Amino acid sequence: MGNVIYIVGIGPGEEQFFTGQAKKALESSDVIIGYTVYVDLVKPLFPNKEYRTTGMTKEIERCRLCFELAGNGKTVSLVCSGDAGVYGMASPMYELHPEFSEVDIEVIPGITAANSGAAMLGAPLNHDYCVISLSDLLTPWEMIEKRLKAAAIGDFAIAIYNPSSHKRADYLQKACDILLENGAGEDRACGFVENIGREGMKTTVCTLKELRTTPVNMFTTVFIGNSESFIQGEKLITKRGYSS
Amino acid sequence: MGNVIYIVGIGPGEEQFFTGQAKKALESSDVIIGYTVYVDLVKPLFPNKEYRTTGMTKEIERCRLCFELAGNGKTVSLVCSGDAGVYGMASPMYELHPEFSEVDIEVIPGITAANSGAAMLGAPLNHDYCVISLSDLLTPWEMIEKRLKAAAIGDFAIAIYNPSSHKRADYLQKACDILLENGAGEDRACGFVENIGREGMKTTVCTLKELRTTPVNMFTTVFIGNSESFIQGEKLITKRGYSS
Repeated sequence: MGNVIYIVGIGPGEEQFFTGQAKKALESSDVIIGYTVYVDLVKPLFPNKEYRTTGMTKEIERCRLCFELAGNGKTVSLVCSGDAGVYGMASPMYELHPEFSEVDIEVIPGITAANSGAAMLGAPLNHDYCVISLSDLLTPWEMIEKRLKAAAIGDFAIAIYNPSSHKRADYLQKACDILLENGAGEDRACGFVENIGREGMKTTVCTLKELRTTPVNMFTTVFIGNSESFIQGEKLITKRGYSS
Repeated sequence: MGNVIYIVGIGPGEEQFFTGQAKKALESSDVIIGYTVYVDLVKPLFPNKEYRTTGMTKEIERCRLCFELAGNGKTVSLVCSGDAGVYGMASPMYELHPEFSEVDIEVIPGITAANSGAAMLGAPLNHDYCVISLSDLLTPWEMIEKRLKAAAIGDFAIAIYNPSSHKRADYLQKACDILLENGAGEDRACGFVENIGREGMKTTVCTLKELRTTPVNMFTTVFIGNSESFIQGEKLITKRGYSS
């Protein structure tokens, strides 16, 4: 074998969220590569593999390492949390691929936080929805603002990734303000999930007004309902269709 | 046990896309319920269960059957393709739940076609994205039009579900026209995947202009790139960030 790289989405964390396809790819690999946190989730399941880790921001370095090892005849898995194609490594791997055309790459899908978090919160998406990241490391804030505005005008249910970090403590508040300025009411049904699929998982439902002043951390996925969403007990529900 | 209903997303079809959690829920169930096509995917894996099927449009009937069986002490799985929370049964189940409050319900997430199809097509989402259904069975077409317009203005990558049916042969063409009228160019990089995770899986890349006149069937998921997406060989790639 060798000369194959699997870009593997493992879902939110716990083994129960791995697909059979992801397990098979990892099992068939000689080397498993990833950011330390994700590699630590995989190691106990496949203890007899060679593991290579790189830091969080060393992503292109990590991609090149995959291609080098695969070029030397190894079967390689590059591990991503959630889905490899949602703010993940599938894209930079394909961008580098022309330099290493002797290597095959295959993306193995996983459950992204929009969907795993939704399951825990009830049914907050369930109709047309958007996924928006508030991280401005690779995207200008003006673009994020434009997307939030469009999502509000289009009355989408919204899943927000990376709602906060040390440097961006007020980004979720700014995002809520953009939604409020573009048609979402203060009583819009919202919710958030902390530590999806890991120890300490917790769901909270609230209004958009309450969300605006709630401190959330980077391990949180935030859900904004559409205009017909509602809170029922501890669950956030978006209807499948519109009652016209 | 009994008095529990699992609403199980099984992913696009083949067993390899099931999560461990979905398999465990099905294994622990007395009765497995669903639309015929999905039940037929599950039956060979768990042959010794009681199966109940209902037709495609009998969804509320299907939900009530779940609650009745669970109320009689059975552990029940309601099977959905893809993710149970994306145009799925999670929402109607929660809407009916107050009538049957002695029953617990739990949503088991699965891989939705936006993500499984993306993996097969390369990395077409990979940044902020929208999921939009063109089915107007439960949603007025004016709302779908508004969402498509907002998605184009927000420069989202877009996954389109239910792009066509016998009655709606020209809906994808209409959708492409709305995108073209709202800022997407004729050369916008697009693609589509037929029969995701099933026999006959096929990916195609094309421009928005070409997509506009391509006949697609109901087993197709369509992807529209954002303004920085590009086609590389047979793959559709959306960059992780914006090169500013």
